[in-house]
Amino acid sequence: MVNYPTTKKEFVKILTSNSNRGISFESDINTTNTYYLDENIALIYKKPTPIKVIDVDFKSRKEALIRKAVFSTPSTTDYNGIYKGKYLDFEAKETKSKTSFALSNLHNHQIKHLLAVKEHGGIGFLLVRFTTLNMVFLYQIESFIIYFNNNNRKSIPIEEFKNNGYIVKEEFNPRYNYLKIIDSIYFKEEDNG
Amino acid sequence: MVNYPTTKKEFVKILTSNSNRGISFESDINTTNTYYLDENIALIYKKPTPIKVIDVDFKSRKEALIRKAVFSTPSTTDYNGIYKGKYLDFEAKETKSKTSFALSNLHNHQIKHLLAVKEHGGIGFLLVRFTTLNMVFLYQIESFIIYFNNNNRKSIPIEEFKNNGYIVKEEFNPRYNYLKIIDSIYFKEEDNG
Repeated sequence: MVNYPTTKKEFVKILTSNSNRGISFESDINTTNTYYLDENIALIYKKPTPIKVIDVDFKSRKEALIRKAVFSTPSTTDYNGIYKGKYLDFEAKETKSKTSFALSNLHNHQIKHLLAVKEHGGIGFLLVRFTTLNMVFLYQIESFIIYFNNNNRKSIPIEEFKNNGYIVKEEFNPRYNYLKIIDSIYFKEEDNG
Repeated sequence: MVNYPTTKKEFVKILTSNSNRGISFESDINTTNTYYLDENIALIYKKPTPIKVIDVDFKSRKEALIRKAVFSTPSTTDYNGIYKGKYLDFEAKETKSKTSFALSNLHNHQIKHLLAVKEHGGIGFLLVRFTTLNMVFLYQIESFIIYFNNNNRKSIPIEEFKNNGYIVKEEFNPRYNYLKIIDSIYFKEEDNG
């Protein structure tokens, strides 16, 4: 379960490995969630990738070997869970662009789902990493929909994330402490109390 | 999305088909959740079955064909979501036994997870179907742990479900309205108010 870096050396190795950076956002988020889990801060999991099994050798339940399968479209977002009694739900995406995030990165039903989460009293957001700039933003679904309703563009410029999103700094451990941002938005009073 | 029975005839057909009963509990729960979703009552989804991909033909992102894969152990439970602002999490299992539910049906980490859900302020439970008797019980993780701590048995007798669980009746639509039970346990005051 513990696959996040436990030594500074290990962390520096990951940080300085550019080749690793492009594909490791999901892994960074998983690492962060494992930290939250181990420290009993929150229960947040990535959902398994949906796969449609077409053909399987079924000797026994434990020895089933899938011979043919395809990836299918996820119904919802990748991550959900519970934090301080609140239902939390988000999608994590990255882009190589330095200027904007293309909306084609998201499915319509994922946006619809995040809006429904908000409507039902949960917390819904996107985590967007601009890989080339090494910047990560937390962007609430509330902001997304305002932007979406007021613009006809097929992408969100980075300025929008800077103005209405929140920068999630890269840290040692947890890697991307996005719950710190969630605290500042949704649990402000508790922090002061 | 709408794959629950829309006519009485269709429903009767399902009800009277014994051969279908054993394998349809998951499908019944999914049907119920689709109803909740369509009626905007709750957002509850089954997580995809975790599959470890070993070999894949990767022509393009959309045309990837998995050639070899195996089923892996789920990290948590099968179902989670949000209802009336609350995080909800459960596992659904069935047994052919008429007298008891074997604990071997559950992984230790699933129980641990459901306890953590409760600890973090969410609602955690089991839905257990005694297939032969055609009875379904909602059994809170709170009750489970009391039973577990006070008994050395490797199964839970049906009496325990009858005494400390809640019967979920089979209905037309939604099939198993388990949120009605959740209302009666967790949202009692709202109902009266």
